[in-house]
Amino acid sequence: MKVFLMPLLKCRVRQCALLVMALSFTVSAESVWAADPLPSWQDRDARQKIIEYVEKVTDSESDQFIPVAERVAVFDNDGTLWCESPLPIQLAYLIDEVKKQAKENVELRKDPAVAALLKGDIRGSLADGLDGLLRLAAIANADMTCDEFKENVQQWVQSAEHPRLKRRYIDTAYQPMIEVINYLQANDFKTYIVSGGGADFMRVWSEEVYNIPPEQAIGSTARPKFELRGDKAVLVRTSDNFVLNDKEGKPLGIQQFIGRRPVMCFGNSDGDKAMLEYTTMGNAHPSLGVIVHHTDGDREYAYGKEGPQKLIEALEDAPKRGWVVVDMKEDWKTVFKFPQ
Amino acid sequence: MKVFLMPLLKCRVRQCALLVMALSFTVSAESVWAADPLPSWQDRDARQKIIEYVEKVTDSESDQFIPVAERVAVFDNDGTLWCESPLPIQLAYLIDEVKKQAKENVELRKDPAVAALLKGDIRGSLADGLDGLLRLAAIANADMTCDEFKENVQQWVQSAEHPRLKRRYIDTAYQPMIEVINYLQANDFKTYIVSGGGADFMRVWSEEVYNIPPEQAIGSTARPKFELRGDKAVLVRTSDNFVLNDKEGKPLGIQQFIGRRPVMCFGNSDGDKAMLEYTTMGNAHPSLGVIVHHTDGDREYAYGKEGPQKLIEALEDAPKRGWVVVDMKEDWKTVFKFPQ
Repeated sequence: MKVFLMPLLKCRVRQCALLVMALSFTVSAESVWAADPLPSWQDRDARQKIIEYVEKVTDSESDQFIPVAERVAVFDNDGTLWCESPLPIQLAYLIDEVKKQAKENVELRKDPAVAALLKGDIRGSLADGLDGLLRLAAIANADMTCDEFKENVQQWVQSAEHPRLKRRYIDTAYQPMIEVINYLQANDFKTYIVSGGGADFMRVWSEEVYNIPPEQAIGSTARPKFELRGDKAVLVRTSDNFVLNDKEGKPLGIQQFIGRRPVMCFGNSDGDKAMLEYTTMGNAHPSLGVIVHHTDGDREYAYGKEGPQKLIEALEDAPKRGWVVVDMKEDWKTVFKFPQ
Repeated sequence: MKVFLMPLLKCRVRQCALLVMALSFTVSAESVWAADPLPSWQDRDARQKIIEYVEKVTDSESDQFIPVAERVAVFDNDGTLWCESPLPIQLAYLIDEVKKQAKENVELRKDPAVAALLKGDIRGSLADGLDGLLRLAAIANADMTCDEFKENVQQWVQSAEHPRLKRRYIDTAYQPMIEVINYLQANDFKTYIVSGGGADFMRVWSEEVYNIPPEQAIGSTARPKFELRGDKAVLVRTSDNFVLNDKEGKPLGIQQFIGRRPVMCFGNSDGDKAMLEYTTMGNAHPSLGVIVHHTDGDREYAYGKEGPQKLIEALEDAPKRGWVVVDMKEDWKTVFKFPQ
């Protein structure tokens, strides 16, 4: 029996901790809720629809109640949770990495895509589309282990700055969306990122920036390579078996990684249309789709009519599908947590 | 402010619930721990090593303490958590499904692999190895949606019986291992299945059988197909982009799905060697590898020296890697929860 004395003592400590947690919850929950769960949102239609939905599906006496295990909310990342203009942030990382490698590697500078990048011609460096992008990613990977990549990204995000906003990229997360994530988590929703970006890239900072743990960040993936190096087992990054988690790939990624149909979905472009459809069409539970529309050229960027982040078809379908459209300029009191 | 009255009321209810939970925890935690966290285990080396490890890494005053977020434990499924003899259970499902399809489809019976199955010649039906198995799986899928597949498996597992044990397959889970899962969960470990079996197959029953939610069941996957059918969005099963989650594939699957290195790993065959290595070699945290050795031909099955579930290399490496070997016959008081 002696073996169990320690855990028993630890349990007593834990009881106290739980009681303290329960009591502190009393105070904090009341004050947060009484104040406003979404303080950066104007009191308009979008905010009301989000709150009405959450109240309805978490009310155990409502016929629209959703059990906790089924409360899955998915969020696109670039342009939905943080700024994606003028460049997706991961692309900015990739460019910095390739430039770093090219400094030390003369051969690399002969590569036309790399040469274009070094001249600041990003469009030229990506002339080959996805293939070109993957080739640049392979250069940036350069046989790094997954642990080394993580450290490298960690260092970069702690200092790299957005060129116009003059803040670190990780500070360009949208304050109103962080409030939505917190609000859903407080209501026992499991919150996932479902992004076209690289899963390994997002997982480095997703917990710090959004309070979303790495295992709930779903993105594009490649299969690493398993190696024993002396007495250490390592995973080496490759571009093998690359799977792009975008468009129709998003519901497939949701099926592969979560295995449940989400009940809430937040996106901002036609790349999110399929996962909005998957969430809201034929769902056994009540569901809500939300589109973040970039209408604020002053505080952020106004776009969507063309280019890689276009929002045309999903916006057209929004009324008939019942998707809520968030007008960033009108619906958000503040865009970022820093003053503008 | 009116909008917030309801959640405020609900919070009061939740406070009470939390307090009650805290109090009931007091009672149940003490009694469970004081009694024995692993009652189906003999008081031998394997049991002691598991308990010592858990106590050490959850003791906040120990220099071996592991923060909660990093407490990831991975379990192989077939042969580690439930019976895999005389056939892996998913293969039994597949055979039943193909037979069902063949009843209604004369053409199918002309397929040599199907014809062999119908004659009871399982070895013959799998003569083409993995390719043959995938072809049978494609037949069993037959354009099912993921939702239909889930229902189908759900029905099957509720009745299909193990040929020798005369119990439902889902009742052939190992009681001592269920106790380990419960024990780890009570100590804030996040428990994952990492199996060569199909992820979609396991996710149907993983919560019922092991208290492991679908999103924590990692397995072999294929990419489904996204389709709009009228006003419903569905995912249709395919064999596209099949990824086998076995051997070196297991650490890769762990990286893709979890993105953290596990600290505990349980396996039973050479197919688990790479994930045992990944868990225990070069881990920044203290780690524990455990091998379940099938030594009990009376109560279960004795095997490992040959065949698809062989355990040779991992067993050889166990002493030098410090992996704990569980001798089923000697270490387990009971194998299943039903009397034998």
